[in-house]
Amino acid sequence: MRVIGIDPGLRNLGWGVIDVDGVHLRHVANGVCRSDPTGTLAARLLDLYQQLTVVMVRYAPAAAAVEQTFVNKDAVATLKLGSARGIALLVPAQAGLDVGEYAPNAVKKAVVGVGKAAKEQVAHMVRMQLPGVQIDGPDAADALAIAICHAFHAQSARALSIAERVR
Amino acid sequence: MRVIGIDPGLRNLGWGVIDVDGVHLRHVANGVCRSDPTGTLAARLLDLYQQLTVVMVRYAPAAAAVEQTFVNKDAVATLKLGSARGIALLVPAQAGLDVGEYAPNAVKKAVVGVGKAAKEQVAHMVRMQLPGVQIDGPDAADALAIAICHAFHAQSARALSIAERVR
Repeated sequence: MRVIGIDPGLRNLGWGVIDVDGVHLRHVANGVCRSDPTGTLAARLLDLYQQLTVVMVRYAPAAAAVEQTFVNKDAVATLKLGSARGIALLVPAQAGLDVGEYAPNAVKKAVVGVGKAAKEQVAHMVRMQLPGVQIDGPDAADALAIAICHAFHAQSARALSIAERVR
Repeated sequence: MRVIGIDPGLRNLGWGVIDVDGVHLRHVANGVCRSDPTGTLAARLLDLYQQLTVVMVRYAPAAAAVEQTFVNKDAVATLKLGSARGIALLVPAQAGLDVGEYAPNAVKKAVVGVGKAAKEQVAHMVRMQLPGVQIDGPDAADALAIAICHAFHAQSARALSIAERVR
């Protein structure tokens, strides 16, 4: 199963695609969609939408997961981040995919083993689990971590459903 | 000039289309795009996106304006509203339109004359300025108010630019 993970942001929207075969993970591609900070919000969202759509068409993932980001800054910043998140959720939904949502702590726990890991630790574990990967910066690393988290959760769900059938 | 105003919301996304000819305003259509509260966020955003795209194609406005909503509730609610706002900005941008953004107080000031008007007062003034209009609820009324606000601002901008040229 091919999974895309998306780390939503208005300036930098990270994405990472992996192939999942049982417990084996393989890196496919990762990168960052960027929008011009001098543009209007509408123009920036359109920009992100178009770039992310190109990624979806190119790598054709079968599943998608997006981070549930929370910001502690002002409401204006949260509203802007929310609009970028809207694009991150819309694009895979348009491709007919179910979109998993994971809290940052759940992503860290799946990748590092604890919920309170530092950013560098997440990037390190992503490199360990996807040997040879070249990561396009911290937002792409987070996106790959989200994809790995989704793969783990999908496996657990499948294992559970097999256990149910065997019982 | 045909203007669409959009009042973004995840459950109810109001829209209103008016024709502006100098100081004359004419109602074209208004309504509400709705999403199923039991659906996933991604599914709801896709639903709103598709409904709003149908409205855009059907009425083909030449300009668009979206309310800059702020919420005082928790960050989760603000993030969700932001995602719906992302759709409200994306759809007209995809149609090649510049999208104006107005704070709620600016909308009230343009329509009622004061920034602190009650919701009913806004709906009343919208009815006064668009005789015979049938309004599809408070979100559609707000959307029509946003369209009227944009028409006023566009007129002021044009008047200023004419004054500049005459001088």
